[in-house]
Amino acid sequence: MNRLNNLSSHLCTALAPPNHPLDPLSTVELAAAVKIIKRAYPGRQFSFNTVTLREPRKVDMTEWLKTPAHHIPREVYFVILETGTPGLIDGYLSLTDGQVKLFNHIKDAQPILTASDLSNTEKVVRTDPLVIEQCRISGIPAEDMHKVFCDPWTVGFDEKYGNSRRLQQAIMYYRSDPDDFQYSHALDFCPIIDTELKKVLYVKIPKIRRPLSQAPHPNFYPKDIEAGIGFRKDIKPIKITQPEGVSFKMNGNVISWQNFEFHIGVNYREGLVLSNVRYYDKFEGRVRPIFRRLSMADMIVPYGHPGDHHPHKLAIDIGEYGFGNCVNPLGLGCDCVGKIHYLDWSHVLRDGSVSTIKNAICIHEEDNGLLFKHADFRDEFQTSLVARARKLVVSQIATVGNYTYCFYWNFHQDATISLDVKLTGILNTYVANPDEKTEPYGTKVYPGVNAQNHQHMFCLRLDPEIDGSDNSVAMVDGARSTYPVGHPENKYGNAFFPERTVFKTAKESMVGYDGSRSRTWDIFNPNKVHPFSGKPVSYKIVSRDVPDLLPKDGGIVARRGAFAKHAIHVVPYKDDQLYPAGQHVPQTSGFPPAGLPEWIGEGNQNIENTDIVVFHTFGITHFPASEDFPIMPAEPITLLLRPRNFFLMNPAMDVPPSYAITASEVRAQKSGNQAMFDKGSQLAFGNAPVAPSSDCCK
Amino acid sequence: MNRLNNLSSHLCTALAPPNHPLDPLSTVELAAAVKIIKRAYPGRQFSFNTVTLREPRKVDMTEWLKTPAHHIPREVYFVILETGTPGLIDGYLSLTDGQVKLFNHIKDAQPILTASDLSNTEKVVRTDPLVIEQCRISGIPAEDMHKVFCDPWTVGFDEKYGNSRRLQQAIMYYRSDPDDFQYSHALDFCPIIDTELKKVLYVKIPKIRRPLSQAPHPNFYPKDIEAGIGFRKDIKPIKITQPEGVSFKMNGNVISWQNFEFHIGVNYREGLVLSNVRYYDKFEGRVRPIFRRLSMADMIVPYGHPGDHHPHKLAIDIGEYGFGNCVNPLGLGCDCVGKIHYLDWSHVLRDGSVSTIKNAICIHEEDNGLLFKHADFRDEFQTSLVARARKLVVSQIATVGNYTYCFYWNFHQDATISLDVKLTGILNTYVANPDEKTEPYGTKVYPGVNAQNHQHMFCLRLDPEIDGSDNSVAMVDGARSTYPVGHPENKYGNAFFPERTVFKTAKESMVGYDGSRSRTWDIFNPNKVHPFSGKPVSYKIVSRDVPDLLPKDGGIVARRGAFAKHAIHVVPYKDDQLYPAGQHVPQTSGFPPAGLPEWIGEGNQNIENTDIVVFHTFGITHFPASEDFPIMPAEPITLLLRPRNFFLMNPAMDVPPSYAITASEVRAQKSGNQAMFDKGSQLAFGNAPVAPSSDCCK
Repeated sequence: MNRLNNLSSHLCTALAPPNHPLDPLSTVELAAAVKIIKRAYPGRQFSFNTVTLREPRKVDMTEWLKTPAHHIPREVYFVILETGTPGLIDGYLSLTDGQVKLFNHIKDAQPILTASDLSNTEKVVRTDPLVIEQCRISGIPAEDMHKVFCDPWTVGFDEKYGNSRRLQQAIMYYRSDPDDFQYSHALDFCPIIDTELKKVLYVKIPKIRRPLSQAPHPNFYPKDIEAGIGFRKDIKPIKITQPEGVSFKMNGNVISWQNFEFHIGVNYREGLVLSNVRYYDKFEGRVRPIFRRLSMADMIVPYGHPGDHHPHKLAIDIGEYGFGNCVNPLGLGCDCVGKIHYLDWSHVLRDGSVSTIKNAICIHEEDNGLLFKHADFRDEFQTSLVARARKLVVSQIATVGNYTYCFYWNFHQDATISLDVKLTGILNTYVANPDEKTEPYGTKVYPGVNAQNHQHMFCLRLDPEIDGSDNSVAMVDGARSTYPVGHPENKYGNAFFPERTVFKTAKESMVGYDGSRSRTWDIFNPNKVHPFSGKPVSYKIVSRDVPDLLPKDGGIVARRGAFAKHAIHVVPYKDDQLYPAGQHVPQTSGFPPAGLPEWIGEGNQNIENTDIVVFHTFGITHFPASEDFPIMPAEPITLLLRPRNFFLMNPAMDVPPSYAITASEVRAQKSGNQAMFDKGSQLAFGNAPVAPSSDCCK
Repeated sequence: MNRLNNLSSHLCTALAPPNHPLDPLSTVELAAAVKIIKRAYPGRQFSFNTVTLREPRKVDMTEWLKTPAHHIPREVYFVILETGTPGLIDGYLSLTDGQVKLFNHIKDAQPILTASDLSNTEKVVRTDPLVIEQCRISGIPAEDMHKVFCDPWTVGFDEKYGNSRRLQQAIMYYRSDPDDFQYSHALDFCPIIDTELKKVLYVKIPKIRRPLSQAPHPNFYPKDIEAGIGFRKDIKPIKITQPEGVSFKMNGNVISWQNFEFHIGVNYREGLVLSNVRYYDKFEGRVRPIFRRLSMADMIVPYGHPGDHHPHKLAIDIGEYGFGNCVNPLGLGCDCVGKIHYLDWSHVLRDGSVSTIKNAICIHEEDNGLLFKHADFRDEFQTSLVARARKLVVSQIATVGNYTYCFYWNFHQDATISLDVKLTGILNTYVANPDEKTEPYGTKVYPGVNAQNHQHMFCLRLDPEIDGSDNSVAMVDGARSTYPVGHPENKYGNAFFPERTVFKTAKESMVGYDGSRSRTWDIFNPNKVHPFSGKPVSYKIVSRDVPDLLPKDGGIVARRGAFAKHAIHVVPYKDDQLYPAGQHVPQTSGFPPAGLPEWIGEGNQNIENTDIVVFHTFGITHFPASEDFPIMPAEPITLLLRPRNFFLMNPAMDVPPSYAITASEVRAQKSGNQAMFDKGSQLAFGNAPVAPSSDCCK
């Protein structure tokens, strides 16, 4: 406490510098930042929306990576609200000298919605006379308002108020019992709330009324399952342990594992941020950079129903709520099993106090099946070599209202990086009348429940540094020879090749996905070619869940979520150009363009052989079905970032095999197959599990 | 031995009936079948190519599934060769009455290539004067012919001999040392061998000569790695155990696990065959059929280089070699870790003797991450429920020369079935001259090594029985509303819906893949609709690695591998229509059409609401890179078969959660977050692993 009391005079010396310039702000730093703002503007009524690391300028980081003594000011980006003042104030300050550097009132921007903002909404809604009346019409008497719940959402774009006030829309639900599953009991109207005034402004009332469903709540907590279908009792445990500890090392937030090294950061918006991803290349005997920064920079979940207030359901979850803000504290044995290392994440609440979410990030290893295998037919596969794969998983789970998004960054021993996204949680639902036909825009997944069509479009931001900072991007398609069958150049008609289109300008990079052509994108360094193939060193984006954005061009979704209109956008690097839907996303109309469309403009910027950033949009189109209800089994999406012509050869050849025997050794041994396979290789790590005869056969 | 001696007179009584009519032939049955053939045709010189179960007629299986006492004759399909007779003889016999039922000489067909056929080829090639001469030209003296090796392949289609003789082509390689990696040292010519005469017929010699590479062999066995870059020493073991045993039960070849039940078969050609896949539906209190039969029915690997003899590299691996024939005996701790149950597979060798491959199929469970999760933002995610997923894995690994194919059938607790295919092993290679530019048809992955473009197109055969035998198939695309933005039906432009096209005829079903439209295919039962949604019960094919076949229509690849021209083919069910490239594939020209194109013809057959079979072709286009050399890290391909509107609700709701606490329980407990998460749910199985503070941080 002494430290904080002395802050106003001793700021330069009170705060210990971070281990790494990209480390998230510590609880001490967060408190100091709040104090600096209050001190700079005494007597003003501020509430704190966002207090986060202002990431160093790239030139400074580049210098620091070479020379850690290079001084980087420790800076904080903030967004605050001032009572009675429309819009928001953002800016940044320096913890190093205690000064506010920028303090910018933006009248027509609205800030991200935080847990603090959302926590009052249910109370506001329950006590509002307009809402009470609509509930009564739905079949809920006034004395039962405590049974009314709501999931507070951003409004999309509100035509009545635009961004002149800070708004939420309340997706309304009902519970008979406080522990009920509410999503089977949606209410048909939608209150619009002023977040700051804490009052309902108006209520959207549909033409066709749909009263409260009378169906039972399909609850699925243990007491409900035990009273109903009963739990499965035949699942035997699996134990996953690492008795000698883990293979990764953490030095603060910097992790080293299997030749990879990178910094793990977390912020309010993107959640996980992986920086300075580098790989120690044994062939070249040096550390080679791959990605300067990787993160999920935004996402949009447009709903496909054109009627009533449904088109206002277009949640830009990262820009409007923030994944860091929505991160779950993870539980051992539940969210992650095995030997887990966690990172906490701290943030500032509305009142300026500091709060810590424990176990926000989970780090662990997993066996990943076969790494590679070759067996020689000449001696019935006795000559063979088998290596098993290990992967490192850095993950977070964010819950945004009903949906739960799980992100798993996987690092592989062959220097591949992959991202798994799992979608689980609960469908957004609307009420359906008993004989209502919900097609084509929704599915009646339960009596009284209309689960509407939607998409989840994720925008991955890749700041590549493929063995150097000047990179390019090429689109690669499988292409048939242009020569017809029978032509001397294509006698048998079998000729095909990779058709490679290097993007020269931002505009050229705005392409879609073509699965029939096996389309991929190479991020490459034209200044470094492979000594054997002559091809530039690259990492290839292999991404196969890449649907078109279905909402149409010219509509609100395409304007606000322009990043989702193309699978790829490449732009020249500029500091602070992080968020593809713009800096302050809630309540934007899409005019003027913000984020990617603003940065790109006409799109004539050179993006070839220079410092670039790649935005890749991928996702799924979700047409709900009964299996998604009441809770959704995790649906997986995967993409890979694979080294291609980056390494001299397979970079995982030095992974000890589980088993390896040469042809000569086979001949020398002359023993039976089974004995050899049970023997194992001396170089295999640990002992293969004992294999008693299986006890599962009758 | 007594039993075998008495066979000729006591065949009806000597053989124990199988547990299940789909069980692979036992060693006793295989020996009996060989004896029956020899006894029926005494004095003739036969060699045995294929002796395998002739699967029961579907009507018989359907009857047996209802009434296990229903008698099904135990029948054997065979392919034999007769010395001096061109072509092959196939037919079938009954083990039940000891009689040969069909004995059919086919003059212009050639049989599958077996290990017995391939084992001589190297010797033949090494001693042939034409080959010795070409080796000398390449730079290999006659006394070094023992250093010459070859991978014997099928010929594709040979213009000189067609199918008048039984042929192989030898892909030539060189090893300085018997344990050398040979694929860096391809030779530029290609001998064509008569398998039965064991002689070289002619040698394909390219116009441009490419002598033996002088580069070192990039060997990767332990002695090589230790002498070179050295092994990684920092991989700590992971232990995966099931101390209480496994959750699955085997009754002979029938497995039960987590409401699934199915028969696991293996045959010479498809390898793994999963039959009678059914699920006990707790909601309906009955067992419901899903798939009658699932298998990988063929595949084609066309190479994309139009020059020299390369277009003859179009390996139809399943039809020309057989996955069962190429199956690896799997090693504990290597190919599979944990508590493993294995199945052996037995087959007949050329000379009629019986051989058993141990551990041909591996069966085990794995933790599969998060099954589902919901957390309530209202109390900072304290109210939550988390369940972990378990999967059952039934797998095999087949090595066909250089490539190793790993197939993993996964069964999930939410009744999803998924298939993972991993490709590993070694690239097919050709020699490259030092200054040669290998583009666009290949990549120089190593000095002297041209790795050519190719595709792997897999054809999955699904015989569905979606809650009954009469099924249909619909193609489902994400489609935009036809109304423009601003129209009353689409004011905001956000409207989209699933566009569903039901295939009425076989011809209509021959469609491609469109990733931009999130295309999927529903196999459904139009006679059973979901009580809530009114949608027909279905299983959806979610498959995202579905490139077009790049070799052109009218060429040899498209003719022989016609199954690869479309992502989907649906045909009416007919017994024995198993193999989409035809019954006997080696050396076919594609004229007349065999397999799918033969069955489909004009394609006017009704395939709606009837007993159908679905063929789905998926795969990858491979443009090699240095990371694939010398051995390839496993490249994964996945597809899902997901229940949609099949179950009343999420069928995995009865999986005990790892953790579950309701809002009321949270309020009652009033304890800190960390304690609650460590506590775990009483219903979680076993104990969550102890979480000491991680020892990995400095």
